[in-house]
Amino acid sequence: MGDIAQLQEKSGLAKDTLKHDYLCVRAQTMKLIASLSAEDMMLQSMPDASPVKWHLAHTTWFFETFLLQPHLEGYKPYDKAYQYLFNSYYETVGERHPRPQRGLLSRPSLEEIVDYRQYVDDAMNLLLHAPSAEIETGVTIGLHHEMQHQELIQTDIKHALSLNPHALPLDPEGSMHSGNSERLKAAEFLHFKGGLSFAGTDAESSFAYDCEQPKHQVFVPEFSLCERLVTNKEWLDFMADDGYKRPKLWLSDGWAMAQQEGWQAPLYWHREDGQWLTITHQRRQPLDLNAPVCHISYYEADAFARWRGCRLPTEFEWEHAAKSEECRGHFLEQGYSLPQPATGKKGLKQMFGDAWEWTQSPFTPYPGFKTPEGALAEYNGKFMANQWVLRGGSCATAKQQMRSTYRNFCYAHQRWQFSSLRLAK
Amino acid sequence: MGDIAQLQEKSGLAKDTLKHDYLCVRAQTMKLIASLSAEDMMLQSMPDASPVKWHLAHTTWFFETFLLQPHLEGYKPYDKAYQYLFNSYYETVGERHPRPQRGLLSRPSLEEIVDYRQYVDDAMNLLLHAPSAEIETGVTIGLHHEMQHQELIQTDIKHALSLNPHALPLDPEGSMHSGNSERLKAAEFLHFKGGLSFAGTDAESSFAYDCEQPKHQVFVPEFSLCERLVTNKEWLDFMADDGYKRPKLWLSDGWAMAQQEGWQAPLYWHREDGQWLTITHQRRQPLDLNAPVCHISYYEADAFARWRGCRLPTEFEWEHAAKSEECRGHFLEQGYSLPQPATGKKGLKQMFGDAWEWTQSPFTPYPGFKTPEGALAEYNGKFMANQWVLRGGSCATAKQQMRSTYRNFCYAHQRWQFSSLRLAK
Amino acid sequence: MGDIAQLQEKSGLAKDTLKHDYLCVRAQTMKLIASLSAEDMMLQSMPDASPVKWHLAHTTWFFETFLLQPHLEGYKPYDKAYQYLFNSYYETVGERHPRPQRGLLSRPSLEEIVDYRQYVDDAMNLLLHAPSAEIETGVTIGLHHEMQHQELIQTDIKHALSLNPHALPLDPEGSMHSGNSERLKAAEFLHFKGGLSFAGTDAESSFAYDCEQPKHQVFVPEFSLCERLVTNKEWLDFMADDGYKRPKLWLSDGWAMAQQEGWQAPLYWHREDGQWLTITHQRRQPLDLNAPVCHISYYEADAFARWRGCRLPTEFEWEHAAKSEECRGHFLEQGYSLPQPATGKKGLKQMFGDAWEWTQSPFTPYPGFKTPEGALAEYNGKFMANQWVLRGGSCATAKQQMRSTYRNFCYAHQRWQFSSLRLAK
Amino acid sequence: MGDIAQLQEKSGLAKDTLKHDYLCVRAQTMKLIASLSAEDMMLQSMPDASPVKWHLAHTTWFFETFLLQPHLEGYKPYDKAYQYLFNSYYETVGERHPRPQRGLLSRPSLEEIVDYRQYVDDAMNLLLHAPSAEIETGVTIGLHHEMQHQELIQTDIKHALSLNPHALPLDPEGSMHSGNSERLKAAEFLHFKGGLSFAGTDAESSFAYDCEQPKHQVFVPEFSLCERLVTNKEWLDFMADDGYKRPKLWLSDGWAMAQQEGWQAPLYWHREDGQWLTITHQRRQPLDLNAPVCHISYYEADAFARWRGCRLPTEFEWEHAAKSEECRGHFLEQGYSLPQPATGKKGLKQMFGDAWEWTQSPFTPYPGFKTPEGALAEYNGKFMANQWVLRGGSCATAKQQMRSTYRNFCYAHQRWQFSSLRLAK
Repeated sequence: MGDIAQLQEKSGLAKDTLKHDYLCVRAQTMKLIASLSAEDMMLQSMPDASPVKWHLAHTTWFFETFLLQPHLEGYKPYDKAYQYLFNSYYETVGERHPRPQRGLLSRPSLEEIVDYRQYVDDAMNLLLHAPSAEIETGVTIGLHHEMQHQELIQTDIKHALSLNPHALPLDPEGSMHSGNSERLKAAEFLHFKGGLSFAGTDAESSFAYDCEQPKHQVFVPEFSLCERLVTNKEWLDFMADDGYKRPKLWLSDGWAMAQQEGWQAPLYWHREDGQWLTITHQRRQPLDLNAPVCHISYYEADAFARWRGCRLPTEFEWEHAAKSEECRGHFLEQGYSLPQPATGKKGLKQMFGDAWEWTQSPFTPYPGFKTPEGALAEYNGKFMANQWVLRGGSCATAKQQMRSTYRNFCYAHQRWQFSSLRLAK
Repeated sequence: MGDIAQLQEKSGLAKDTLKHDYLCVRAQTMKLIASLSAEDMMLQSMPDASPVKWHLAHTTWFFETFLLQPHLEGYKPYDKAYQYLFNSYYETVGERHPRPQRGLLSRPSLEEIVDYRQYVDDAMNLLLHAPSAEIETGVTIGLHHEMQHQELIQTDIKHALSLNPHALPLDPEGSMHSGNSERLKAAEFLHFKGGLSFAGTDAESSFAYDCEQPKHQVFVPEFSLCERLVTNKEWLDFMADDGYKRPKLWLSDGWAMAQQEGWQAPLYWHREDGQWLTITHQRRQPLDLNAPVCHISYYEADAFARWRGCRLPTEFEWEHAAKSEECRGHFLEQGYSLPQPATGKKGLKQMFGDAWEWTQSPFTPYPGFKTPEGALAEYNGKFMANQWVLRGGSCATAKQQMRSTYRNFCYAHQRWQFSSLRLAK
Repeated sequence: MGDIAQLQEKSGLAKDTLKHDYLCVRAQTMKLIASLSAEDMMLQSMPDASPVKWHLAHTTWFFETFLLQPHLEGYKPYDKAYQYLFNSYYETVGERHPRPQRGLLSRPSLEEIVDYRQYVDDAMNLLLHAPSAEIETGVTIGLHHEMQHQELIQTDIKHALSLNPHALPLDPEGSMHSGNSERLKAAEFLHFKGGLSFAGTDAESSFAYDCEQPKHQVFVPEFSLCERLVTNKEWLDFMADDGYKRPKLWLSDGWAMAQQEGWQAPLYWHREDGQWLTITHQRRQPLDLNAPVCHISYYEADAFARWRGCRLPTEFEWEHAAKSEECRGHFLEQGYSLPQPATGKKGLKQMFGDAWEWTQSPFTPYPGFKTPEGALAEYNGKFMANQWVLRGGSCATAKQQMRSTYRNFCYAHQRWQFSSLRLAK
Repeated sequence: MGDIAQLQEKSGLAKDTLKHDYLCVRAQTMKLIASLSAEDMMLQSMPDASPVKWHLAHTTWFFETFLLQPHLEGYKPYDKAYQYLFNSYYETVGERHPRPQRGLLSRPSLEEIVDYRQYVDDAMNLLLHAPSAEIETGVTIGLHHEMQHQELIQTDIKHALSLNPHALPLDPEGSMHSGNSERLKAAEFLHFKGGLSFAGTDAESSFAYDCEQPKHQVFVPEFSLCERLVTNKEWLDFMADDGYKRPKLWLSDGWAMAQQEGWQAPLYWHREDGQWLTITHQRRQPLDLNAPVCHISYYEADAFARWRGCRLPTEFEWEHAAKSEECRGHFLEQGYSLPQPATGKKGLKQMFGDAWEWTQSPFTPYPGFKTPEGALAEYNGKFMANQWVLRGGSCATAKQQMRSTYRNFCYAHQRWQFSSLRLAK
């Protein structure tokens, strides 16, 4: 963990803040599971997703493994088997339980995992009494890591419950709050001059992941960005115009995937009695036509853009435009379970929060990218192949986690994240 | 359900017995889950197996669907969705939840399912106050059906927990009760003259499934049967003689399967510190060398028999020999979680209970076989392809369920039932 | 090959006949390929099938490996690599080329394989000058083996060419010779008394495979057999009555397979311009409505029989009925590429030739079955699992190969053989 | 094909040259098949590859479909079925034969395909008598298209023959010509200053594909490139240092693929008698230690670079460096079947020819990328997902096809192209 010390010098976080942050983030996680049973938290509906109970344990294992064991004298691990059971993908740390079998862990029970969280929190409280700079940096990473899993808890349980026809009651009023009846007017494009620009960050004054670094120059040709995300209504137009049936609109791999999976609409959309519904993790409800389309793959986003005679933005165009915007929008803290319609004033809307935006940029290393030393070397670098960058965060993202340089990434076929698109040209 | 009336006339069960039986069988099921948590009862480790919670609900659904709805006036189903969720394979009854996704049913909760059982038991109590002959026959089938699922509850949870490295603690004394140290002496073969014989039953005086009927003549050439089941010690000899490595001992399909799955020993056997262990649904423990080998596929049983210069018995040889034996042995009621060593006197041992015996007979219809009318037409007939008959019951079988004409059946590759073998020649 | 000596004593074949037989059988094989190019003979359209070139080489390899190498002094193998390339499944003989990759053997060329056949035939001519009894028996097996592959050459090339839309021209008159316009009248059932009967043979006076032995007693209850095979017209009635859409008619495994494969009609049937066509290995042509249905799986045969309120015969019923019939019908020698309509007199028709008849008997060993010693131990015994017995031969079977005790076998889902059905009750 | 007219104005090719080019390129294709039989040309060893016969027909189909049918009055297609059989992936042109079944086309025969080529060449001769600008552009594309397939003919037949243990004789002297014994000295890195640079081309004065356009500015930070490709000797060092066994060297997807496929060395490498051999399409031969490593996946190239503390170049770095180099090296015309050792002077070597160089750049559209109109819209754009750019050409590439802006692309797991790597830092 030698790398943590280096990162810390840059971070300059006040100690009080950190202890407070720790309590808040850990409490937020527990808040997310309030409506779930121990049985719900067992569910693993696909290898991409994990049981909620596993997320609760894994985020705790992270603090135990990278903070308490190396730094808290006399610390005794809660249970040695957890080292194996709750390691996600750190090859350096040792063998681990196979990912597709996480749903078979009825034991340890939820009760034990809650107890494990408390045990680790108590020890962390001691450690945070007078933390070194290295510890502070490590804890900061652990908290950002936990916030990432907060989003996964929401997307994973939503996917799992979507497969149980008994789980989600119909709520005919579910989307009424947003003024469904009145249609948004056509969106405008905003022009950007481009030129030499800086992308990424050196993380000098605040936290950033390895993959956002270093700050570097890029040349961005002039471009235009749409002021808001594509809406459900616009997506229905695409469907009505046979968007899912015309191979010329699609990437070759995308068309093959769409045929294989039988895609006809975004994930979670289905018709009942002639009406399009979607779901939250708590109910089935009518589509809000003005809300951003959500739960689409890269392939669908790309086909839609081509259908509209547009394209997806590059991640550098997005970052160039976002840099001067304030980071505010509908985040986890606002409590929405779906992205909300754009409102208000002129200018860019929904750049942050609401839904992740697919970019046309594959997830690759920035020039000069360095993997941290130690176990965290495996954090992001080894995933830099075959995935695409998404930007901006969603209604399931903790606000504290978001910034204009943040790079999320998914495979082009994945749809269970809160993923949407903004047109560019 | 017109068929039930016909079956009933033959059955002649006293009404008192039936009400008593109902209570006992239903209570026995609940007794089996005493040590399991709601999370354990969610587990589905392969499509062949089902979650314990699903078994609890499905057996209850059987009474609700085939007894209460047609026969109890004013009966209101507990929850209409259960019709879909807990139908196993009855095409006639309607659509059903996909089998491999039974592990995704976190809802309804265990609590609700226990409540469902009580609700149905209460209604059955009313129905059994003055049951018609048709009802009596239907209930009898329902109870035998539930006893079959009692065995599946045990085999399915054992398989699921076997995949969780955290679930089963080591018990070094686990097999000590059976006098492990003293080796059984070599087994003797008993000779049978054969000739024209009767197999199956017309179910006139007691219950039997459709596939055991009708009673019919078969010609059985003379044969010999081994007095007891093959032991773990004998299986280790087979392994030591490269039994798993010599293709000439194996059926062609069996050899392909063994290579594909990497079979090197029976299911659940593994080595720790130079010692062979196996598992129960509660612990890991040393092999009892005198106990019957268990959890083997048909292919392994067949290869072992060939290695010994013997063969498996046909189901008619087995039935011919078993007819004159009393139906007693180690059944569910004795509480053993693994088959026990043969003991005692001369003559056939372990014909009933302890472990199912693979026969070389494929599961096919008897001459004159008729499927019952109504929904129960789907009970056994449609499975009469690609499966093999097993005879005699196991330590996980309710004693009341067993008789010399009983035909269990599995695919040749399946190993998670309590399956063993007896040599013939 | 010690077993061959034993078999020979029984065979009593005249030496003249054998040399003559050898020439005839080998020439018949070459006659089958007259219309095929070297490119056609490369085709392998599925793992179940092999390229024609491979069949030509493998049957030759059989004589080289089991006759010439052990028995002809000074014999030099044509090419050592052929030992590996053209072994089918004899584990005892050594490693072999993977079955699904037989279509990748562009080398050796067809020209070389034809040369190989000549080389071996020349050597066999020497060996057959004054053969020992053991050699005679071995050659007899080799010829029967080659006749089996003659049938496979026809079924495999038919399957391969069926997948090339360019290969088979339409012949609108293709089935006219059989008097298509006049419909066969409804078929009658013939009654058999049954009782104790003998099945199989001890192969004392003529050749028979291991799996037909030994002759043994079976008890056959009384039964009725349909006088002829089911026709294409009757199969169209089954289809019109939703035979492929009603799960209750099907075995559970069969229904799953039919859904997975999208079966709607027998293999090779397709509609063009509102007319049902089928194919031969040379053309597409209209269905002959009076001809036997062909290229159906066991599952389809079984479903059809259930739809008609009948069942398939057991192999012992079939053999009991066939024993007193003369072995004549449409065989390979008659030159038909599809089975022909039943004609003529009262009584059983089409018992031999035209098309194989699925029985409801799984392929299992007869009581007292013994595998031969040596390499031929692998001939039939190791396939005695998961397959069904077919009886009677087809229009692609050499007449000399057929007899009432002959047992062919296929997996229940296979359709590329000339398989049909006869009803029983 | 309206796009062709536009492209032509830029091309300015002399008419004489074109007719001459046509003859040369078509003749070169036929030269490649001189040593192959009709049976060899049937082989399809994986879905990624096609039979040589199919390549011969498809390249001809291209001229027939895009040139002769629209532009040569009175032209009659050779065979209408070819439209379906030999379309590769042009959805616009209509249905097509499934790619994985190209190996099943024994008909049309090779003889017919050769006749088809002649028929089309004769018609093209007429068309090229006085071609319009639009025709000239179309023919130019057709010739570049055919040159791409010349390389595929070589890589596909090599892969197919590699799977036939009988096809490739050992040649112990096979790599001797290159002075195997004397080791190349350690390679030097050359430094480039970087800065704003131009990439791509507007194809004003010579041919270029859509994906190379338009010319656009990029910012390239300073970098260093290795003077030559990585050698087989250096790759053996990587293997000796457990390069294939250390997950930390690998991308996550790459490690999974390497485990799944059991990669231990580059494709086609195998040990015989303690010596490492590789193959050409004609023989097995010892590795030339000084020659560039070849037939590696992106994942292996990336792992090697990480092991050496380096990285792969981006495509813009490569292009920046290559721009000032002359396009010369070992191409198809030189007749080598494997890349050759670097020789000679200071400075960049092997930038062109010998072996393709993996870059770390995913294959994505350049800013302002436009798909051509008409059928050729499908040429490159729809493959812009999940693939990586390779640069520089190989010993199987026609020289005329290569230039510094040329972008080849493959999936990261593919190894059957002549792919190698050059280190950057």
